[in-house]
Amino acid sequence: MSSYVRRVIRENLKKYVGGEQRIPKGAIKLNQNENEYPTSPHVISTLINYLKNNDLRRYPEQDSETLKDKLARCYNLKSEQITIGNGSDEVIANVFKTIVDKGDLVTSTNPTYGMFKIYAIEAGANYYEVDLNDDYTIPIDKLINVRGKLTAVTNPNSPTGVFTKISELEKLAKGLQGYGVLLIDETYVDFTRDNALRLINKYDNVIIARTFSKSFSLAGIRLGFGIGNEDLIEWIEVVRNPYNIGTLNQIAAIAALEDYTYVKKNIERIIEEREFLKKKLRELGFYVYPSEGNFLFIKCKTVEDAKNIVNFLKSKNIYVRYFGDNPKIADSIRITVGTHEINIKVLQALEEYLQNYRIK
Amino acid sequence: MSSYVRRVIRENLKKYVGGEQRIPKGAIKLNQNENEYPTSPHVISTLINYLKNNDLRRYPEQDSETLKDKLARCYNLKSEQITIGNGSDEVIANVFKTIVDKGDLVTSTNPTYGMFKIYAIEAGANYYEVDLNDDYTIPIDKLINVRGKLTAVTNPNSPTGVFTKISELEKLAKGLQGYGVLLIDETYVDFTRDNALRLINKYDNVIIARTFSKSFSLAGIRLGFGIGNEDLIEWIEVVRNPYNIGTLNQIAAIAALEDYTYVKKNIERIIEEREFLKKKLRELGFYVYPSEGNFLFIKCKTVEDAKNIVNFLKSKNIYVRYFGDNPKIADSIRITVGTHEINIKVLQALEEYLQNYRIK
Repeated sequence: MSSYVRRVIRENLKKYVGGEQRIPKGAIKLNQNENEYPTSPHVISTLINYLKNNDLRRYPEQDSETLKDKLARCYNLKSEQITIGNGSDEVIANVFKTIVDKGDLVTSTNPTYGMFKIYAIEAGANYYEVDLNDDYTIPIDKLINVRGKLTAVTNPNSPTGVFTKISELEKLAKGLQGYGVLLIDETYVDFTRDNALRLINKYDNVIIARTFSKSFSLAGIRLGFGIGNEDLIEWIEVVRNPYNIGTLNQIAAIAALEDYTYVKKNIERIIEEREFLKKKLRELGFYVYPSEGNFLFIKCKTVEDAKNIVNFLKSKNIYVRYFGDNPKIADSIRITVGTHEINIKVLQALEEYLQNYRIK
Repeated sequence: MSSYVRRVIRENLKKYVGGEQRIPKGAIKLNQNENEYPTSPHVISTLINYLKNNDLRRYPEQDSETLKDKLARCYNLKSEQITIGNGSDEVIANVFKTIVDKGDLVTSTNPTYGMFKIYAIEAGANYYEVDLNDDYTIPIDKLINVRGKLTAVTNPNSPTGVFTKISELEKLAKGLQGYGVLLIDETYVDFTRDNALRLINKYDNVIIARTFSKSFSLAGIRLGFGIGNEDLIEWIEVVRNPYNIGTLNQIAAIAALEDYTYVKKNIERIIEEREFLKKKLRELGFYVYPSEGNFLFIKCKTVEDAKNIVNFLKSKNIYVRYFGDNPKIADSIRITVGTHEINIKVLQALEEYLQNYRIK
């Protein structure tokens, strides 16, 4: 072990384990909440046209100005309210780097997105997490009372999928004003009923993180964006690495926004399929969280039962996500909503498990 | 000004200003050390083929494993000695995040690459820079004496282009052992006579940063890599954002390595042109640093003279780089080596300036 490494890293961090990627050919991959519908053909043809007469030897735009302008028009914002990152991960990391100093308090919920804790550790911050409410919504009052320098939440939450009303998040933003920043990770927001954008112009301490990875079928380009108060964004832009986004990724994102009708149609299909899958799973007797993401979170009978289901599905070439290292949710599994055909296969496999393999 | 921003950021940082990007159509752009020869056609056709049957809705490889394996084979390394970043900038940022704690000492030279100081400030570190030797090489003994937790140098140096012998850097690595890490930014190494790779297996405190932006004509994909001792790299990999590199960028880099013959030929042409341009500039009476990069650094008569040259060239539609905010080099300009045709135009413009516009 290298003695040159910061103690806080050596003693508290280990390598992030994401959803399994190297799965057998032809297997059904429902473990990373990727979009089961292909990327917009307009994105692909735009990239191919660019490549035919490309300028890849040149640096990309330092600040992704054209993409920011496009996003501003699409979301009715100012360009100065936007920052771009390699995935919402880099946006979130930049928020931490801008706001959180060594010894500061970072608060979040359990469960939530795993990277918040990692970024807090890297900043040398104290990380404090509060349990979700009984209905799995975000515990607003508890988070206000803790008064973190940065409070990070995901809405709809991950991996439960449960949505907390924006009026509640507004209460949180207001309660934290003067003390700290509220970061709202809206990775899955396009699959739900509302969003927090209207808080941006009202509160100087709110930042929203968004991504092209889910609703836009573009996880491969790693494109995320942050939206917030201009003053705050200006500083995040100071901290952001210049030229951080490759040319092709910028071009792909702009083209995806040009073809939002296509994206919108896929979102509608996914919501429809989510409701279908949820209904059928409940009919099978599963406890399914009221998810508003592009995935379902399912509470199994026991931790053992959850593990057995994950393994049984794997034997059927279906890969889902299991968070066994978090005791609070080790009895649950997360399944990405697939196409209708895929969802039928998942249901058939689970039915077979229940009939023949569940330990009574 | 947002009160939520870390004091160290608010008081010490301002937005990074890179080489001008929005230049008139048809202008000659020699201000970012981009490669004047186009990207390998093999890279472009590989990307187009991928796009025709793409999987962009999927996340990229979490750790760029395939690219690492390819780099390991090309450079005779182990994959475990390699880390990948969005540009060498992200690699360098990850080195800082892994090694440098608040209050630690970061040392470097003046002048050198501008981002070292920025990352040091962001880490809350103390940044100490020593002047270069009289011949513009790196002052090894002075850097050893300061014993930084992280010592960051660029070789060949930027923006001077001067090369420090690897035996000297080895002395530095040895002198720092037990105290700190030596980061060697080898952005321009492919245009010079030697490199520091052989130090990796000998010293546990050396990390080398490389890039596809210069010799590979691929600044647009923002692809950098770090090479170092396995123990150290393992921790940088813990700190690195998972899935940080987009699929297209990984594919482009792999294809570029497959077509290294093409890259090599361009490197040779650039070196030849550099020597031609250097000779001619010296004949015109300029003091030209003995650059071993893909650029030349030219000391003008005065700060005023340097500014006048930059502006005169701009009036001729030629954009070069001026570092006016660093008093130590405000009398100098940096010019990227172009194609022969471009270099002739630069020489003609400078000749015209000398004959008709230089203030005697």
